Amino acid sequence: MTTGKINVSVENIFPLIKKFLYSDHEIFLRELISNGTDATLKLKHLTSIGEAKVEYGSPIIEIKIDKEAKKLHIIDQGIGMTADEVEKYINQVAFSGAEEFLDKYKDSAKDSGIIGHFGLGFYSAFMVAEKVEIITKSYKDEPAAHWTCDGSPEFTLVAADKTDRGTEIILHIAEDSLEFLEEFKISGLLTKYNKFMPIPIKFGTKTETLPKPEDAPEDYKPETIEVDNIVNNPNPAWTKQPSELTDADYKDFYREMYPMQFEEPLFHIHLNVDYPFNLTGILYFPKLSGDLQIQKDKIQLYQNQVFVTDNVEGIVPEFLMMLRGVVDSPDIPLNVSRSGLQADGAVKKISNYITRKVADKLKSLFNENREDFEKKWNDIKIVLEYGMLSEDKFYEKAGAFVLYPTVDDTYFTLDELKEKIKENQTDKDGKVVVLYAGNKEAQHSYIEIAKDKGYEVLLLDSPIISHLIQKIEGDNSGLHFVRVDSDHIDNLIKKEDAAISKLSEEEKESLKTVLETIVPKQTYTVQLEALASDSAPFIITQPEFMRRMKEMSQTGGGGMFGMSNMPEMYNLVVNTNSELASSILNNKDKSAQESLVKQALDLAKLSQNLLKGEALTAFVKRSFELIK
Amino acid sequence: MTTGKINVSVENIFPLIKKFLYSDHEIFLRELISNGTDATLKLKHLTSIGEAKVEYGSPIIEIKIDKEAKKLHIIDQGIGMTADEVEKYINQVAFSGAEEFLDKYKDSAKDSGIIGHFGLGFYSAFMVAEKVEIITKSYKDEPAAHWTCDGSPEFTLVAADKTDRGTEIILHIAEDSLEFLEEFKISGLLTKYNKFMPIPIKFGTKTETLPKPEDAPEDYKPETIEVDNIVNNPNPAWTKQPSELTDADYKDFYREMYPMQFEEPLFHIHLNVDYPFNLTGILYFPKLSGDLQIQKDKIQLYQNQVFVTDNVEGIVPEFLMMLRGVVDSPDIPLNVSRSGLQADGAVKKISNYITRKVADKLKSLFNENREDFEKKWNDIKIVLEYGMLSEDKFYEKAGAFVLYPTVDDTYFTLDELKEKIKENQTDKDGKVVVLYAGNKEAQHSYIEIAKDKGYEVLLLDSPIISHLIQKIEGDNSGLHFVRVDSDHIDNLIKKEDAAISKLSEEEKESLKTVLETIVPKQTYTVQLEALASDSAPFIITQPEFMRRMKEMSQTGGGGMFGMSNMPEMYNLVVNTNSELASSILNNKDKSAQESLVKQALDLAKLSQNLLKGEALTAFVKRSFELIK
Repeated sequence: MTTGKINVSVENIFPLIKKFLYSDHEIFLRELISNGTDATLKLKHLTSIGEAKVEYGSPIIEIKIDKEAKKLHIIDQGIGMTADEVEKYINQVAFSGAEEFLDKYKDSAKDSGIIGHFGLGFYSAFMVAEKVEIITKSYKDEPAAHWTCDGSPEFTLVAADKTDRGTEIILHIAEDSLEFLEEFKISGLLTKYNKFMPIPIKFGTKTETLPKPEDAPEDYKPETIEVDNIVNNPNPAWTKQPSELTDADYKDFYREMYPMQFEEPLFHIHLNVDYPFNLTGILYFPKLSGDLQIQKDKIQLYQNQVFVTDNVEGIVPEFLMMLRGVVDSPDIPLNVSRSGLQADGAVKKISNYITRKVADKLKSLFNENREDFEKKWNDIKIVLEYGMLSEDKFYEKAGAFVLYPTVDDTYFTLDELKEKIKENQTDKDGKVVVLYAGNKEAQHSYIEIAKDKGYEVLLLDSPIISHLIQKIEGDNSGLHFVRVDSDHIDNLIKKEDAAISKLSEEEKESLKTVLETIVPKQTYTVQLEALASDSAPFIITQPEFMRRMKEMSQTGGGGMFGMSNMPEMYNLVVNTNSELASSILNNKDKSAQESLVKQALDLAKLSQNLLKGEALTAFVKRSFELIK
Repeated sequence: MTTGKINVSVENIFPLIKKFLYSDHEIFLRELISNGTDATLKLKHLTSIGEAKVEYGSPIIEIKIDKEAKKLHIIDQGIGMTADEVEKYINQVAFSGAEEFLDKYKDSAKDSGIIGHFGLGFYSAFMVAEKVEIITKSYKDEPAAHWTCDGSPEFTLVAADKTDRGTEIILHIAEDSLEFLEEFKISGLLTKYNKFMPIPIKFGTKTETLPKPEDAPEDYKPETIEVDNIVNNPNPAWTKQPSELTDADYKDFYREMYPMQFEEPLFHIHLNVDYPFNLTGILYFPKLSGDLQIQKDKIQLYQNQVFVTDNVEGIVPEFLMMLRGVVDSPDIPLNVSRSGLQADGAVKKISNYITRKVADKLKSLFNENREDFEKKWNDIKIVLEYGMLSEDKFYEKAGAFVLYPTVDDTYFTLDELKEKIKENQTDKDGKVVVLYAGNKEAQHSYIEIAKDKGYEVLLLDSPIISHLIQKIEGDNSGLHFVRVDSDHIDNLIKKEDAAISKLSEEEKESLKTVLETIVPKQTYTVQLEALASDSAPFIITQPEFMRRMKEMSQTGGGGMFGMSNMPEMYNLVVNTNSELASSILNNKDKSAQESLVKQALDLAKLSQNLLKGEALTAFVKRSFELIK
């Protein structure tokens, strides 16, 4: 039997690291700045606990491009390394100095914000550089060291004459990566990955105009000076306590994150939890336009203020992906598949926490200023309605703040609505009937008829509303939603009053026969009703159940299989008490009778937006003839 | 000066491999089956060149689950390893035996289909297993070896009594990965990653009914036998030559790839190129439904018959992402960022090759059977139109097959169309005017008026059509597209004929004054025209330029900034030669005059789908009164 240790040789691993360490080569800059940040935070910690007897000062990290020499410099003023430390930390791939530091200073350093994990970040430099130099001076009283490696695993290490504390990394950019010597490219990367990192990052200088002195002479010329161009905000709003921030601060931070966004957010939710996981962040409800697809990928995920990704799928509940803002948590496992994320306990808890915080915020907004909440309703409803459908935990809480607006802009909670319509909209079988419209314009005539009866008509116009209605009905027995155009109003809410028909049974039979010969049966079912004589003579209705199933099937995830391809079916409700019904019945001229029915059908179709194309052209032509 | 070699220790690297080698842990199975496949293909190659003096036979790879013992077995009948080879290939992380083999057998082995690259795949086993065993017997006359490693980098290696050639990997599945002992899970992975790998893969057995013998007795009972359940198709259609395949074969393969797809593809394109890159594959044009978003991610990328991803962004030109099928190329760099892919020369060439092949295929389909091509036009136009907009190379070739259908289903190429309308649709300034409609139903009355003049009216109803029209106009000077409702037809194609007005200038002035007091000016501009007396008295038109810019701005990437929020503006064309115009002018009763104008405006609005809501309800009510 042989025993031994699996072996890994740097000759085999190094080429893999160069090519495949990260799929985005541009990550190298984030990694090196993270190292510089850690070096600075370590020094801060050691001075704070008195272990380093030096002045911490106001260290920054500087990025410099030397285009001519094809070099990129990353310079920090942090803890630095002695030659021995270079040997230990740099010459050993995947040995994590950050982990070692956190281990050593356990409790005292746990909130130090140190980023590093795996000791691989430094090597990402070789993805873009053909040679890398490190010139470093420790805070300890030891000489500086100069390390050089040309990408072969061979290195050299000599003493250096650097006297100021900190580490300078010099990348000799490879021919295939020269883009990283362009100012706009580096500037773009700094904005993307390092915008909110905790140590100030300098990239070049900028000109600032000095304030005009009080005693300036008349011919004073503004004076300018060159100052460091700091590209990041080391103290972004989400790292502060909510109590430190005003409403204006939150809005300022929104503009900082989304400078191209002209509209202000509707409101924000500050996330801040230590246990059982660590999470901070601010989410904003933006005004949403119609297209939901476009709105995603606006929430950014950070870890200790380092940008990770704008794909927060699995971490933020799906219905909240349309929000904007930041989530920062060191507890989210990266580099894990989506299914892995979903199975991860901490991630599940984070997602639930976010849902709860959002529901709580909505409830308090509703309670504190209902009028304002109602004004915002149209901009937030799609998120809330989708949340009710997709997250049971949210649905349970939603009753307290979800609104049902009427076509006249009165807003009810579901409980208020039930109370309001209980008396007038309960039918003879005890069902409480909620009337709604999907479109105020298109269903105008039907809405008017319902309002004439004193009924409330809701305006429910979200694309997923049929799914939500279905769910609400399931949870509220005795409550029935019907769209105003799904039958004649007297049938939608049946009362005890017996209808009195002007026509005899015989006359009705005869009228029905006439109508059914003229009206196309594959589309319309003729339905005679004895209504008030001044009600519309012809109305086209579309039964609620079929239409709702069809809509659910079209918007996905419900209804019945194949329903979306069913032909549209309508009822033609004819008012037997109308003058027109009598005129039709009593017209002895067959051809005049037919014209009358067709014109009346056309008018009914117009009200239901069904008169189109050739039929509409003919109708308009005929009508022009009538008035000329 | 110190020099030395950067060092990597297996203790540091191993934990990283276990956690982060691949973001999807499930990849381990693909990697181990790829190794087994390589072992088999190596044996095939060595026997074919006479270097291995053994029978190649019909080797398979077997996957077995032992749920009780929490073990997963992957067994191949390939080349096997001696104890020395285990030491060399297994105990050395990232040493690639495949690369070594390809190096050694250079030319003869270059088409062997060997998959391996980096020598890391085997270690992915540790992502899901707490202990891994290898029992292997080389094709050489040497004893079998048994290697065991419990995930610490320590291993043991002893002799084994395995006598049949090949390698068995035994994974002792870790507690957090027990899902990989579920039959449905493994079966799902085999379907996803290994469906078309070149060596048969056995997963369990299945029952097959033997054919009934010719001399079967009357009371014959069907006999069944247990046979290997082979889960893959080792010879998928794309690996064959087009000349070996019939139309039915292509359709069968489509069904094999998309078993849930009921509709047949419209046509296919076989990709097959050796130089300057290696690429095979088959692309299918499916019937596309309206929602383009849903259609993406249907093309699968393979490398040497191993599934890699269904995200082919950057490799397949964007406008072809709606197609379905397979692309197989060992030359596509994986694990590279999207921007990296776009910059990669080989990938750019692949993308251009695919574009060219698709254009060539479309051209030949058009030439071989134009009638059939026209029938398919509606199902493919969105892809082609998008291609013309997004890929210049495709645009250049598109003239030969892109069609412009009329509202009466006649199909023209652009050249044919120009020839056809040259005479009748050239206006007095020499502009050739192409008339089009966006919707046959909604623009019916306008289409009829144009057809009455003998003009051709195209039906261009894609969402991106305004962008395409803009481009075509730019490239064809003298050609102008106008929608049929953008002005009165006599203004759209102005001829020399002077219009004779029945009204005097004074009467016109007076009519205009009347109209402008009644018609709302913020929406309608009154435009008097002397048209044929039987033309419609009132028509509402919407100028082409504004509407098109607005549409372009709405569908993104064109038009003018902010145009999508401009209010709609219309012209009200009033025919001064119509009887109605005279009636209005001569009506002395102010209120009757107003009713007349309002009714006429309502009718014109009806034709342009502008009469809605309250106005429509009032119109219908009024009209019912008229006929009762």
